[in-house]
Amino acid sequence: MELMNTESIANGPTVTIGLKKFYNGNFSVTEDILAVEEPLEIKLGYGPSGNRKVSNVSVTMRTPGSDEELATGFLFTEGIIANRDQISKVEHLFIACRENKQNTILVNLHENAIPKLPEIERSFYTTSSCGVCGKGSIEAIRTVGPPKQEDIELFQIDSGTLIALPEKLRAAQNVFRKTGGLHACAFFDSAGMLLLVREDVGRHNALDKLIGAGLEKRIVPMDDGILLLSGRASFELIQKAVMAGIKIVVAVGAPSSLAVELSKEFNITLIGFMREDRFNIYSSPERIIFE
Amino acid sequence: MELMNTESIANGPTVTIGLKKFYNGNFSVTEDILAVEEPLEIKLGYGPSGNRKVSNVSVTMRTPGSDEELATGFLFTEGIIANRDQISKVEHLFIACRENKQNTILVNLHENAIPKLPEIERSFYTTSSCGVCGKGSIEAIRTVGPPKQEDIELFQIDSGTLIALPEKLRAAQNVFRKTGGLHACAFFDSAGMLLLVREDVGRHNALDKLIGAGLEKRIVPMDDGILLLSGRASFELIQKAVMAGIKIVVAVGAPSSLAVELSKEFNITLIGFMREDRFNIYSSPERIIFE
Repeated sequence: MELMNTESIANGPTVTIGLKKFYNGNFSVTEDILAVEEPLEIKLGYGPSGNRKVSNVSVTMRTPGSDEELATGFLFTEGIIANRDQISKVEHLFIACRENKQNTILVNLHENAIPKLPEIERSFYTTSSCGVCGKGSIEAIRTVGPPKQEDIELFQIDSGTLIALPEKLRAAQNVFRKTGGLHACAFFDSAGMLLLVREDVGRHNALDKLIGAGLEKRIVPMDDGILLLSGRASFELIQKAVMAGIKIVVAVGAPSSLAVELSKEFNITLIGFMREDRFNIYSSPERIIFE
Repeated sequence: MELMNTESIANGPTVTIGLKKFYNGNFSVTEDILAVEEPLEIKLGYGPSGNRKVSNVSVTMRTPGSDEELATGFLFTEGIIANRDQISKVEHLFIACRENKQNTILVNLHENAIPKLPEIERSFYTTSSCGVCGKGSIEAIRTVGPPKQEDIELFQIDSGTLIALPEKLRAAQNVFRKTGGLHACAFFDSAGMLLLVREDVGRHNALDKLIGAGLEKRIVPMDDGILLLSGRASFELIQKAVMAGIKIVVAVGAPSSLAVELSKEFNITLIGFMREDRFNIYSSPERIIFE
């Protein structure tokens, strides 16, 4: 049996595909909607006029859509750019042999902006001379200079607001409902009103898109709202939250050990296993008021 | 309120942690078991005696356990080593300032083994001159030289065997049951008997561990069994399956568009949304017999 062709994938977030479905002992040929996954190459242009440079910063497998936000959010959460104002222009590059897909993006900085590019052959986690351990990873973030996470006045949220968040995210998720294949993250204000939601096949991409949108809206540091993650909370996601100045992170799934350590270190309130009637607080519980 | 300290984390797959639990309007201070996440630095030693080199290949955030398999599986699925026989010795490096955690591993090759290391500053996805598109990513895999996926005699599995797999994986998952925070993958023989299972906070790490175990047991190419993934099927996971010669991949979750494209290209049977009474076949359905 020949299944349907997938050659003509558009550069949108979903694609319709042919498949063979088995159900209750019978099979049928049908169609289904999948989340699109395509590489995005992020390039950075910088330097004074007459001596401009272009660096290949990263390639990530992402779901097309919000590519500009993904690129700027990634550069910001990795500490390569310090703020949105360093950017002069973000543009997709079209390259003929690349199937006319918009899979390369160039972020141009102003002439006087100096990016903090990682050393060659060293990943983000190994820039610290102390090297590879949980502590070393946490200290590496400190050297990148995230905003202070101390509350001038204690930022607090009540438990009733928290419990209502996952349903609001589900109602707002467009692509996930169709495909079942996407991670999502959302940003709410202190009253629980949804401000931003972004989706991607990669959970780190979804958060970079969200923070990139925050940069665009000039609401970074995002220290007066709540970040909700549709899945688990890992080190990498908390690292991005730290960089964006986010103080309350709520995950529907489980946190990892290093996510908890990092949250404690940077005074982030980390909540996991968020359900309709329950949740767990792993760090800085004083920001949560119990009704 | 002071939550329990996490300083004394052992280098095992789980850790017990203090937390504040909210349930049905009440809160309590209790303990929970989390999946450990720690960086692992993979180094490669190679070259003739008298001119040995050590390269820093990768740092990945992983759950401790099966580190040797993770390192060898990663080197193999990235095409850096061609087989297990190139390896002379795998050792953890202890470095004093690194909290005595075993977070650095050195894979030593025999003197005559020549690794295929990627060019500096180029990721796996951009080694193809055609660059960044779905096709380019797929072609990049071809250049690394995975085993042929053509069946000499058609390898077939019946639907009843497939449907029974997820329950067998759940029964075998140790860490996940405790923490709810780990991805798992398992390898079954054609009769549905569980041969290998591995877990990790990163789904790509879980699969590298599994394939590393396959290398150790000398069962690569793993072309006579079934790979089961606890979550979604992305490009990266199918790429690793291709390298290991796996012909049937079953995901409990959704596949991405590029996972389907890659499976078609390399003649892998890709199944998604595996439930008790149903599943979807996205490619090479001729390997599945309907009972």
